[in-house]
Amino acid sequence: MLRLYDNLSSGNGYKVRWMLAQLGLPHERVELDIDRGDSRTPQFLAVNPNGRVPVLRLGPGDHLAESNAILRWLAEGTPFWPDGRREKAAVLQWLFWEQYSHEPNVATARFWITHRFEMTPERVHALVLKREQGYAALRQMEAHLMRHDWMVGDRCTIADVALYAYTHVAEEGGFELDRFPAVLRWLDRFAAQPGHIRITDPTGTDVPFDPDLLA
Amino acid sequence: MLRLYDNLSSGNGYKVRWMLAQLGLPHERVELDIDRGDSRTPQFLAVNPNGRVPVLRLGPGDHLAESNAILRWLAEGTPFWPDGRREKAAVLQWLFWEQYSHEPNVATARFWITHRFEMTPERVHALVLKREQGYAALRQMEAHLMRHDWMVGDRCTIADVALYAYTHVAEEGGFELDRFPAVLRWLDRFAAQPGHIRITDPTGTDVPFDPDLLA
Repeated sequence: MLRLYDNLSSGNGYKVRWMLAQLGLPHERVELDIDRGDSRTPQFLAVNPNGRVPVLRLGPGDHLAESNAILRWLAEGTPFWPDGRREKAAVLQWLFWEQYSHEPNVATARFWITHRFEMTPERVHALVLKREQGYAALRQMEAHLMRHDWMVGDRCTIADVALYAYTHVAEEGGFELDRFPAVLRWLDRFAAQPGHIRITDPTGTDVPFDPDLLA
Repeated sequence: MLRLYDNLSSGNGYKVRWMLAQLGLPHERVELDIDRGDSRTPQFLAVNPNGRVPVLRLGPGDHLAESNAILRWLAEGTPFWPDGRREKAAVLQWLFWEQYSHEPNVATARFWITHRFEMTPERVHALVLKREQGYAALRQMEAHLMRHDWMVGDRCTIADVALYAYTHVAEEGGFELDRFPAVLRWLDRFAAQPGHIRITDPTGTDVPFDPDLLA
């Protein structure tokens, strides 16, 4: 059975939970306490040397990391991965853009605030830059969504799933979404889909975190 | 004909140049002066709202951005994109890892130094963090390459192309590659491939940058 190493506050984890729920795939889910350092234990680093969730265990000793690579894996043969070569390239363009230009700004601001990081002068300065670049990313989404209902083509793909994850909680990172009416309409459109789950909804069967039983 | 919007100092551009040269694909190449702001002109922002090179023009009004999405596009049907589903997922995992955990640290340190950015106190502090995280990324590559000749499977894929681009010039960003003997051997292995070109080698037919002729 698939097993997801996860944290419920993580938007990157939510991408995978949302897709697993949407596709009705049975799975175990292991909640890691990131603040306690679960994801930096030697045992977890053997699973993902990058020390991050989510990781999807595909089989014994076989682990796939990077949320958007996992989304792509799960979407194979489903309507969330388009048929045409050009549309596939457009989906991947948004997935890379999400990880480079959106997540490091929109998600990290939220992470620092909700996980109560100490606001050192350096972090305050960095937060100003992240605010600027996060708004730049949201403006690009707004411009696109003023002309399109979905990020690529005429239905929901994993480009939407990836971008929904941190955009819909951007206000927790101090971003004012009221400035982006087309983004707000897209968020509503996304959440109105049958089988939608919220970021706080656990999925699958809960399995306790045991650093000695990770392989 | 394909047309690449590019900058010769860009490792992200080099990924695409390397692949175009390797596949022998005829193309035009437009060199943008990033320091002068060519990539932030209204005309270029209409091509890529994210204001970055490389961008590959596939046809009239049809532009693909994000270097790793372009690599994936070009690699279709070539040995640089593996056949198996699991290997494809592994390649994508490395591509996303490169853009999230490697490039923002290893490449940005080099960019600030080689483009002579003013070293404000905030940037000095940020550089310390990037050095730490860049070394963490290089250590992960070293651990992987101690056990494997290539990033995925038994031959060069676009995972290697993407990671070669900024790793081989990491010393320009102040990283000491001597600490990573397996990485150094992999760099040599990569550069020994027939048809290899250097980051400073222009490819295709030079076309001057003209903001009014971008579509």
